[in-house]
Amino acid sequence: MKKKLSVVKIGGNVLENEVELHKFLDAFSAMEGPKILVHGGGKLATQIAHRLGIESKMIGGRRITDAEGLKIITMVYGGLANKNIVAQLQARGTNAIGLSGADGNTIRAVKRPVKDIDYGFAGDVEEVNTLAIYQLLQAEFTPVFCAITHNKEGQLLNTNADTIASEVAIGMSDAFDTTLYYCFEKKGVLLDIADEDSVVKHLEPINYQELLENKIIADGMLPKLENCFHALHKNVGKVCIGDISMLAPNATLFTTITL
Amino acid sequence: MKKKLSVVKIGGNVLENEVELHKFLDAFSAMEGPKILVHGGGKLATQIAHRLGIESKMIGGRRITDAEGLKIITMVYGGLANKNIVAQLQARGTNAIGLSGADGNTIRAVKRPVKDIDYGFAGDVEEVNTLAIYQLLQAEFTPVFCAITHNKEGQLLNTNADTIASEVAIGMSDAFDTTLYYCFEKKGVLLDIADEDSVVKHLEPINYQELLENKIIADGMLPKLENCFHALHKNVGKVCIGDISMLAPNATLFTTITL
Repeated sequence: MKKKLSVVKIGGNVLENEVELHKFLDAFSAMEGPKILVHGGGKLATQIAHRLGIESKMIGGRRITDAEGLKIITMVYGGLANKNIVAQLQARGTNAIGLSGADGNTIRAVKRPVKDIDYGFAGDVEEVNTLAIYQLLQAEFTPVFCAITHNKEGQLLNTNADTIASEVAIGMSDAFDTTLYYCFEKKGVLLDIADEDSVVKHLEPINYQELLENKIIADGMLPKLENCFHALHKNVGKVCIGDISMLAPNATLFTTITL
Repeated sequence: MKKKLSVVKIGGNVLENEVELHKFLDAFSAMEGPKILVHGGGKLATQIAHRLGIESKMIGGRRITDAEGLKIITMVYGGLANKNIVAQLQARGTNAIGLSGADGNTIRAVKRPVKDIDYGFAGDVEEVNTLAIYQLLQAEFTPVFCAITHNKEGQLLNTNADTIASEVAIGMSDAFDTTLYYCFEKKGVLLDIADEDSVVKHLEPINYQELLENKIIADGMLPKLENCFHALHKNVGKVCIGDISMLAPNATLFTTITL
C-alpha cells in the first residue's frame, strides 16, 4: 500500500490575515505524515507594488505579469511570504523548506504562448520533478512552495498557486496516496452562497453535473473545481475544499471530491 | 581522505553588476565537486527601501535592522536575489536550491543582545545544521544561502554574509576538506591599495602579523581577515580571497590563507 501524502494549498485570504495564518500554521503543523504546502502572496504583492508606484496591469480581468510585476512577486511570494511561513513552521517543529519551482528544479514551466493576449512572465507547468521532491520528503523536510516556477533557462515565471498544488499532487501520486486540500475562507462548496453552512459534503461527477446545470457553482469556483477533477483523473486520491478546520483529524464540515 | 567541498561567498559589488554576476555564475557552475554559495543583497536592498520610502537606520556606522528593514531584506535577499541566482544556476546545469537559515532549520541564530546599541533584528549564528546541509549535498543539490537566519522561534534575522559563509564552512569541515572562497571585486589582499596587482599570494599568521604592524591591512579588510583566521582555527582547510578569476582551476593571482 502506498504511503499517504497531503498537499495543502493555502488561499490568499488566509495568508493575509495574521490571526488566520497562525491558526492555519498550527493546523498544518499538527497534520500527520509527509506533507507539502503551496501558497501565493495574495494582496501583499499588490500592496507592495502600490507602495513602489507600480500598478498591476490587467487585460480582460486577468493580471499581466510584466518585468516589474515579476520582481514584486519574486520579492513578496518567494521572499517575504515564503520565508516567514517557513520560520513560523520551524517554530512549530515542522521542518519546512521553502521552494520556488527553480529551487532543485522542482517545477519547470513554459512562458505562456502569446495568442490574443500576452500574459507576460506567466508560466504554465510543464514538468514536476517528483524525484527532487521525493528526496526532500525522504530527508524529512516539508516543502513549502510559493507560486513561482522557472523555465530552466534562467527565467522565473509567475504561476497560479492552485495549479502548482494540483500538478505537484498529480506528480507525487505515482509514489503516494495523495490527498489535495484547498484551504480557503469558506467551509467548502456551498449550495447557497449566502448560507455558510450549506456545504456540499461530497462531490462526484454526477452531482457536480447537476450543480453545474442548476448554476449553483459560482464563477470563481468553476476553474477551481475543474482543477480538482483534473487532479482526480490524473490519480490524485481525493480532493478536499474547506476552511482551516478541515485540516483537523475529526473534521466533518467540508467538501470531499472523488471520482 | 575527506571529500573536497567549496564554500563560496559572493560580495555585493559582484552581485549588483549584471555582467559580473553572470561571469561569476559561469565560474561557480564550472567548479567541480560539491559546493555551497552564500550571498547578501548589496545595494539592491537600499534601493528598494528608498523606493518604498524607508530609510536605512545607522548607528555608529552600523546598520540597524528594524522591522521594516527586515521585511526589505527578506524580500530582496531571500526573494529577488536568491531566486534569480538559483534560476540562473539551474540554466547552467547547477542544481541550485535557495535557502535562508530558516529553510530546513539550516542556520539557527540568536538576536544580538542589546548592550550599548540595539541592532534590532540582527542575528549572531549559534548553530549550523550540518546534517541538513549534508543531506542536501548528498541529494546533489547545491545550496545557495542568502544572508538571513532564524531563531527557531519564528523570527527571521539579518546576518552578515561573511559570517554565514565562515560558519557554514566550519560546520561542514567535520565531514569535508573545506575551502572557503571570498569572491569580491579585488584580486586579493593588496600590499598597495592603489596597485591592483600587488596581491599577497600567501598569508599565514606570521606575515599577517607583519602586515598588521605595518598597517598594510585596511579597515574593511580587517574583520574579513579575522573571520578567515577564525575559520582556519576551526578546521577549515584553506581560505582564498580574490575576484571571479580565482574560481578557475588554473588561477594564480589571488590570496591563499592557511595556518
